[in-house]
Amino acid sequence: MDKAENPIEQLSAYEGELPIIATNRTRWFGGKASDAGRLDNLFAASRFDAVEFVDIELETARAKDWILQEFRENDVQLIISHHDFEETPSQDILDAIIDQCAEYGDIAKVATFPQDQTDTLTLLEAINTATQKGIDVAGISMGEIGSHTRVVGHLYGSKLGYAPLQADEEDYAPGQIPLEKLEALVETTKNASADEHLLSTLEEEEVTVPKEITLSD
Amino acid sequence: MDKAENPIEQLSAYEGELPIIATNRTRWFGGKASDAGRLDNLFAASRFDAVEFVDIELETARAKDWILQEFRENDVQLIISHHDFEETPSQDILDAIIDQCAEYGDIAKVATFPQDQTDTLTLLEAINTATQKGIDVAGISMGEIGSHTRVVGHLYGSKLGYAPLQADEEDYAPGQIPLEKLEALVETTKNASADEHLLSTLEEEEVTVPKEITLSD
Repeated sequence: MDKAENPIEQLSAYEGELPIIATNRTRWFGGKASDAGRLDNLFAASRFDAVEFVDIELETARAKDWILQEFRENDVQLIISHHDFEETPSQDILDAIIDQCAEYGDIAKVATFPQDQTDTLTLLEAINTATQKGIDVAGISMGEIGSHTRVVGHLYGSKLGYAPLQADEEDYAPGQIPLEKLEALVETTKNASADEHLLSTLEEEEVTVPKEITLSD
Repeated sequence: MDKAENPIEQLSAYEGELPIIATNRTRWFGGKASDAGRLDNLFAASRFDAVEFVDIELETARAKDWILQEFRENDVQLIISHHDFEETPSQDILDAIIDQCAEYGDIAKVATFPQDQTDTLTLLEAINTATQKGIDVAGISMGEIGSHTRVVGHLYGSKLGYAPLQADEEDYAPGQIPLEKLEALVETTKNASADEHLLSTLEEEEVTVPKEITLSD
């Protein structure tokens, strides 16, 4: 919501079929919202039927855990997220962060910045470990170095993918893969060897996405 | 050589430009060669200029390390390989296997069978660790479960990829990805987000491969 114009108005006008994940981030979390009214606006968004998930930062959940139940009463599921835009924590710490996200919410989401390829494996390991514990987890290793984790993460149980629309071309974060291409790559890695027609699938794939709404993550 | 008809004759007739990796495996190592004369035939192959690499099993290198210098005198580099068709060793053991392969040869190659996705991470970790030590390593997690390691292994330093020709369609091992498709996927993951034209690259990519020779790995 922090990067969208009049997000509440847009939600009112939304007639698409896809469910929406609402987020409203301050600068601290890579967004543009000011602190004042941020959670109130997110709460207002969560009242709309189309909004099925709200993404709340782990740090926010820790500091104000009483709001979580209020959000739940608006019939949304909670993604509790942790972002580290500078580095990737060690395996133990990352596991602990995911565990804590899962305690507060329905889906634990972590996005960490890799200094090298070893850090991308740490992120994949953490996803895999959480999945084996039965946690609904989503994970991304950010930047160019981690870009492939967006493609293979699902194989280790990552439950959410984030992709910009082709129309947002100017606005990709480093490592992001546009929606159609990401979908094709994910499909390919689902069973890379079984289907000799996958290359033609990559050509023919058509994805329809609502263009009306510009809420972005 | 064990699966090719008259491989030495084929090598004599070979006029392609691509360098060749020669292997000659017994059943023990997933091949069809009988023990008698197996290494002599591989040695004969190594005399051809086009044969730039010979792949020798770690177990063979251990048992008969005196042959390695003889191969080197034919001006080939040595890939020392370890295959486990049933499971993936623990991280420590896999690291030790790769170290030993690297002591005997120029390139250490490991192919292990995964029981689950955790095993595919173990293989990727081992490749990454060896690369950081400065070892020229190649690694594959076999079967359907490990198929994606053929695509992303290069990001962790894996130096060799194995892919059947499209013409061999009937003869894929599980998890193998045909050459053109593997090349397109590897190119895509080299920098998944930077080039918006990558999908069209996948369509347009044309790979020319020699059809004359059927030596297979």
